[in-house]
Amino acid sequence: MERDQMIESVKAQMPEKRWKHTEGVMATAVQLAVRFGENPEQAELAAILHDVAKYWPVDRMEKVLRDQKLAPELLAQDKNLWHAEVGAWVAEHEYGVTDALVLDAIRFHTSGRLAMTRLDKVVCLADYMEPGRDFPGVDDIRRLSKDSLEQALLAGFDSTILLLLKKGKAIFPLTIEARNGLIEELKTGG
Amino acid sequence: MERDQMIESVKAQMPEKRWKHTEGVMATAVQLAVRFGENPEQAELAAILHDVAKYWPVDRMEKVLRDQKLAPELLAQDKNLWHAEVGAWVAEHEYGVTDALVLDAIRFHTSGRLAMTRLDKVVCLADYMEPGRDFPGVDDIRRLSKDSLEQALLAGFDSTILLLLKKGKAIFPLTIEARNGLIEELKTGG
Repeated sequence: MERDQMIESVKAQMPEKRWKHTEGVMATAVQLAVRFGENPEQAELAAILHDVAKYWPVDRMEKVLRDQKLAPELLAQDKNLWHAEVGAWVAEHEYGVTDALVLDAIRFHTSGRLAMTRLDKVVCLADYMEPGRDFPGVDDIRRLSKDSLEQALLAGFDSTILLLLKKGKAIFPLTIEARNGLIEELKTGG
Repeated sequence: MERDQMIESVKAQMPEKRWKHTEGVMATAVQLAVRFGENPEQAELAAILHDVAKYWPVDRMEKVLRDQKLAPELLAQDKNLWHAEVGAWVAEHEYGVTDALVLDAIRFHTSGRLAMTRLDKVVCLADYMEPGRDFPGVDDIRRLSKDSLEQALLAGFDSTILLLLKKGKAIFPLTIEARNGLIEELKTGG
């Protein structure tokens, strides 16, 4: 599918405010990709599609998860995580994306995962720090992102974990694995 | 092995200060067991032995983990977690403990785990709140423990996670699973 056509189609599936967020993620992901030597076209493609399923009704997401037998453990987790897995499926099956790196960057943009690719990190970090975001710590994340993808993303995960602690809500184990993986990478200079 | 003989043997394996901590965990575990309808003898036995390997040299713990093929994922984790797994092995093979509930309470006293038994919770919580403990939040944990094993332990895990966040250190995934399990139990009133 052509870029413009894809953008129109994704835009139609979410409120205008969320589309503004997506535009922010697109621009930020491209900047980060250039800064850290990743492919900006892959980064932008993942960014365009990362929230494609965000405003789907819960039962529509659940149907895709069940019918396609995607990540069964997700069904027991917070519904806010479903749109990422469903989004990767939609990107592949409705938008014809075949690049596994792009699909994974969509799939793990909310949770992270152990051993994230650099493209995963770019998209996940862009989602934390695009210009429309405003939460405690976001300026630290932006500052850290000048020098280190890993330090900035670690600060992003820390902000999420802290929020979930304060709210007494469950923490997604993949996010802990992602954070532990970043700490290990930073330790070994990898 | 007789109780007194076991106590003398465990006491000989740690500095006096740690033995004072163990005595605190013993008394607190017995209180909590009585309060929440668990067996105080099982709770005390697990408490006596919970830190038996805490002051072993790292290479001695590593040798047991490797030779006995215990929890291979632990070798990649923080060494502070090793003594719990090694302690359960020592309890079984050097002190003749055969009660699987007691062995599990020793094994998971530091990390917790998904679907903790009530004995696991009693020992883990006693380790957080015995009278010698002094850290931010410990009085909240003691207060919560008057009414709810799960609420108190949740506060204990939160304090650990918060500390690891502040220190930029890895968080053990089992602790997250344990915390998520407690949140789920509290939600369903289980």
